[in-house]
Amino acid sequence: MSDAPTAAAIIIGDEILSGRTQDQNTGFIAKTLTDIGIDLVEVRIVGDQEDAIVQAVRALSEGFDFVLTSGGIGPTHDDITAMSVAKAFNVPLVTNKEAERVLVAFLAARGVEANEARMRMTQIPQGARLIPNKVSAAPGFTIGNVFVMAGVPAILQAMMDEVVRMLPASRPILSETIEAERGEGDIAKAAADVQEAHPLVRIGSYPYHDGRRLTTRLVLRSRDAGSTRRRAQGDGASAE
Amino acid sequence: MSDAPTAAAIIIGDEILSGRTQDQNTGFIAKTLTDIGIDLVEVRIVGDQEDAIVQAVRALSEGFDFVLTSGGIGPTHDDITAMSVAKAFNVPLVTNKEAERVLVAFLAARGVEANEARMRMTQIPQGARLIPNKVSAAPGFTIGNVFVMAGVPAILQAMMDEVVRMLPASRPILSETIEAERGEGDIAKAAADVQEAHPLVRIGSYPYHDGRRLTTRLVLRSRDAGSTRRRAQGDGASAE
Repeated sequence: MSDAPTAAAIIIGDEILSGRTQDQNTGFIAKTLTDIGIDLVEVRIVGDQEDAIVQAVRALSEGFDFVLTSGGIGPTHDDITAMSVAKAFNVPLVTNKEAERVLVAFLAARGVEANEARMRMTQIPQGARLIPNKVSAAPGFTIGNVFVMAGVPAILQAMMDEVVRMLPASRPILSETIEAERGEGDIAKAAADVQEAHPLVRIGSYPYHDGRRLTTRLVLRSRDAGSTRRRAQGDGASAE
Repeated sequence: MSDAPTAAAIIIGDEILSGRTQDQNTGFIAKTLTDIGIDLVEVRIVGDQEDAIVQAVRALSEGFDFVLTSGGIGPTHDDITAMSVAKAFNVPLVTNKEAERVLVAFLAARGVEANEARMRMTQIPQGARLIPNKVSAAPGFTIGNVFVMAGVPAILQAMMDEVVRMLPASRPILSETIEAERGEGDIAKAAADVQEAHPLVRIGSYPYHDGRRLTTRLVLRSRDAGSTRRRAQGDGASAE
């Protein structure tokens, strides 16, 4: 699977690290990238802390083809993602005229004051391009190989539609699932032998409780449809 | 909040990064640590890849007081956490006699074969201590400041009960929630002013849709009960 573009995600927000909010964005980003054939290789969850965000953006944008972030682009004091990403790329924050136009129009249509806090959301790193926000107008942005999105799941999901269009299409990752109908310990040796013989297929083994006992799902993943399906059918697979 | 012990978590598993499985362990670890007064500062989600696990363990065990990991300690070929943690600490994997005794007894009582794959789960890094597993016997372990637990949520949760006893008690982090009953943009300036005047209280602003409109919850967090409550009551708080 080494011909695939790679990606990392940064989930930004104290509320995830305190356990107050269950992170939904990792799962959505992961599924979306898998569907378009990009391998999500690492996710980091960090708090609303400039140093932590700057370090994560620098490390991951060097290490992977694409980096997607969620959270911290609202109007309040703890929204410091734009500032931190600008710092990571050593550029200033500047007011984006298009973002200003769109946000002013959106607020005016709703009779909401375009105060200083709200207009702060139109400041993006110099050289960044906007990611439109069809839900609440305040945009995300992309700079270098980094895509910066909102943390509210509905807004992130709308922004991901836009990001997908900006990312290269790749060969999707195919997967087949086999219900092993027995414990991991019973099928471990056979699974290891099959894995060794088929390096282009990645075989994951996932134990779960089916209500009666611990049983196992094997998931075969590959970019090569032929080898995924041949392996799966040999053992009685069903499509995922 | 700088007097608090710090922790990081490493969630290990391809199934999270492909979007196939929704991670539940981050939320559970986060809540548990918050309850005992330990600050979870960073989470990394990595795949079943030795290099990624070794790097994450080394970086985070140097950077934080404690590191908790979940996943990759079962009997199959993709369970490589014990091996990777041993490598991160430059020690060999050795068979643990106590783990062997417990697992053999558990399997015998259920008429399950103690085959080579299952007995691989009794190999832990030299110098590590066991974390008992009351659900399915195969133990986790702790070495240095790292606590290695299973990925199946029910097993992880049972292991966390044991880990909590091994961690130091600290002053718990107190939190109060204020329903702002208006948009983030309307309260941003006031919240920033209050935050600036009260550096010991960390004020988070969380927009959410209440069914009618986007509104905001402010969450005040501090180790100092007096300052959290005073701030919250001044604005009409309710306990979280």
